[in-house]
Amino acid sequence: MDYNKAALELHEKYHGKLTVQSLVECRDRDALSTAYTPGVAEPCRKIKANPDDVYRYTCKGRMVAVVSNGTAVLGLGNIGPEAAMPVMEGKCVLFKEFGGVDAFPICIDAKTKEEVVAAVKAIAPTFGGINLEDIRSPECFEIEEQLERELDIPVFHDDQHGTAIIVLAGLLNALKVVGKRLEDVRIVQNGPGAAGTAIIKMLMTAGAKHIIAVDEHGILVPGRPAGLEGHKAHLAEITNPERLSGTLADAIRGADVFIGTSVANALTVEMAKTMAPDAIVFAMANPNPEILPTDAKAAGVRVIGTGRSDFPNQVNNVLAFPGIFRGALSVRARDINPAMKMAAARAIAGLIPDEEMNEENILPKAFDPRIAGAVADAVAQAARESGVARV
Amino acid sequence: MDYNKAALELHEKYHGKLTVQSLVECRDRDALSTAYTPGVAEPCRKIKANPDDVYRYTCKGRMVAVVSNGTAVLGLGNIGPEAAMPVMEGKCVLFKEFGGVDAFPICIDAKTKEEVVAAVKAIAPTFGGINLEDIRSPECFEIEEQLERELDIPVFHDDQHGTAIIVLAGLLNALKVVGKRLEDVRIVQNGPGAAGTAIIKMLMTAGAKHIIAVDEHGILVPGRPAGLEGHKAHLAEITNPERLSGTLADAIRGADVFIGTSVANALTVEMAKTMAPDAIVFAMANPNPEILPTDAKAAGVRVIGTGRSDFPNQVNNVLAFPGIFRGALSVRARDINPAMKMAAARAIAGLIPDEEMNEENILPKAFDPRIAGAVADAVAQAARESGVARV
Repeated sequence: MDYNKAALELHEKYHGKLTVQSLVECRDRDALSTAYTPGVAEPCRKIKANPDDVYRYTCKGRMVAVVSNGTAVLGLGNIGPEAAMPVMEGKCVLFKEFGGVDAFPICIDAKTKEEVVAAVKAIAPTFGGINLEDIRSPECFEIEEQLERELDIPVFHDDQHGTAIIVLAGLLNALKVVGKRLEDVRIVQNGPGAAGTAIIKMLMTAGAKHIIAVDEHGILVPGRPAGLEGHKAHLAEITNPERLSGTLADAIRGADVFIGTSVANALTVEMAKTMAPDAIVFAMANPNPEILPTDAKAAGVRVIGTGRSDFPNQVNNVLAFPGIFRGALSVRARDINPAMKMAAARAIAGLIPDEEMNEENILPKAFDPRIAGAVADAVAQAARESGVARV
Repeated sequence: MDYNKAALELHEKYHGKLTVQSLVECRDRDALSTAYTPGVAEPCRKIKANPDDVYRYTCKGRMVAVVSNGTAVLGLGNIGPEAAMPVMEGKCVLFKEFGGVDAFPICIDAKTKEEVVAAVKAIAPTFGGINLEDIRSPECFEIEEQLERELDIPVFHDDQHGTAIIVLAGLLNALKVVGKRLEDVRIVQNGPGAAGTAIIKMLMTAGAKHIIAVDEHGILVPGRPAGLEGHKAHLAEITNPERLSGTLADAIRGADVFIGTSVANALTVEMAKTMAPDAIVFAMANPNPEILPTDAKAAGVRVIGTGRSDFPNQVNNVLAFPGIFRGALSVRARDINPAMKMAAARAIAGLIPDEEMNEENILPKAFDPRIAGAVADAVAQAARESGVARV
């Protein structure tokens, strides 16, 4: 199927993919006077008197904003807010179709960190949660942190945490398949941008102890001659306990796990051959992975996942974000905190029973109808247990 | 019917009144790959190459933002963005139910003029038009002017222009009923806030020559001892050609038309008795008008309109805004300019044929199914003729 051609036809058919529907009919004066003036003044008064009532009488508590400034859209780069619209509308489609969550795209004309923060804070009263999307690194880190701190609704940068959650879920099951423990394995993360950095932090939270991060200048290690900008200095401090230096090839020798959020063909067959026995590879460069599954298998890798739906073990964020927001909204969570992200990863991993788990089946399929509910339940419970639930 | 009780039940039933629906189903891999990655990259690329394609491939051209900062909501005052949500959701319901227009509420945390302008400019890439709502005067004037100047999509403050359009439509027909001409009549406008000011300007554009504006300190006249803040100094210059001064009672003596956007009971029976024969009164204070229709009739007034649906001749903005935006969006208008507003007023007035027109029938009923189409067609044609249409 030619997806480009089909996509143009689909997007032109209705002009975009979303519509706003009224849940009430206005066919007579009584209906109009109840949905609008004069009756509508009464829920307004209630909310003014008790701000929490905004969750009772409006769509706020059901509504997620999918916000992007279009600075890092898919693999297309900084294409701006208008050109980002098809992706953000698409994300809202997935929220609804996979999680039953109402979501609305907000593509913003905001280039600097300060402008993005100001725009999101301005619109926050309307929404129960903010899904940040396709905002370039490193600004995305500070934007998310500041918004999380200053808003009382959850803010979640899916490019970071969605990917990290699925990688952890897949890795937990892949380790079961190969009979290794997260605490013991040597992990190489190639491409520590938004997703890579979140993956490193999430794996460490889950118990990983030997992670080496690698960028286009080589291994991240304190005092590296090629320098370490921004968040990479911090990453170098918290990873690489043996203070290795060198290239990706140096890092990969003897590694148990490779996690790529980098570029096509970054992991050569020669490098893959130097990995430890029963190696695991997540090659998530899009659309062409760091190494093709057939090549990785030929090099002796035992479990391989990619971002693609035409290979086994697809690392697909749609497994996480619909259920995460559904769960967070259901308990009016203030945040989506690490405990909730961890709960989501474990819930996703848990959908593959041990007896069905194998090299080609470590993650549920996107269309598995159990996913959003399982994730939402786990996330809601974790929110309550960690004290960020308000109901 | 107890509208307050019914409104609380309705608003609590689904939590608010709006839902976002996907226009595409995502039941299999091909659907997902067309609505989202990898196919979605193709419309993104097209828009990046040709910005106008955002109207072709996204919902932008169908989508109106109903924006409020909650500083002047109904008669409730400055209740803030959260408490304004029921009204803005309700407005979106009316856009959809009466005009088939997709609209989404954006309640913003923005107090100053600068903050409102910045927030609306930030979200503008997402929308084909901006409906400003319930923003207090005088900030609303400058906010609308600046946004109109700086954005290439139409910006329309409904509290100003929607009301003005319906008043003009009603007045055109009321003048036919009493056999007077707009050029000749003496008009008193009481309460020159957002709506009152727009009414004065619109009536002057339509040909009215004798308008006197009155506020709580009396007639607006240059050099008035009580002072003239902000936009009122300008109003005093352009109205009141005879430079009358005094009270509302002084202004009303001999007037042909009273247009109230003020407070309950502002027009006493005694004042109404001093109006010219065959007088016309629009008493639009909500929920209680400046004078009750029965009292006005008893005082000799011939045609009376109010804001209420339980009296004849309701001045209801829902007659205008759904069709105005439908028409403006249909031709990708850059603005909603005076010619388009005038065309809307004439289209609304034209829906009452001369043979059906009488003292109690000068405006179509809100549920007349012809309205939005008639207004949209007239507005689209005026946009093309005045050079602001892009298709």
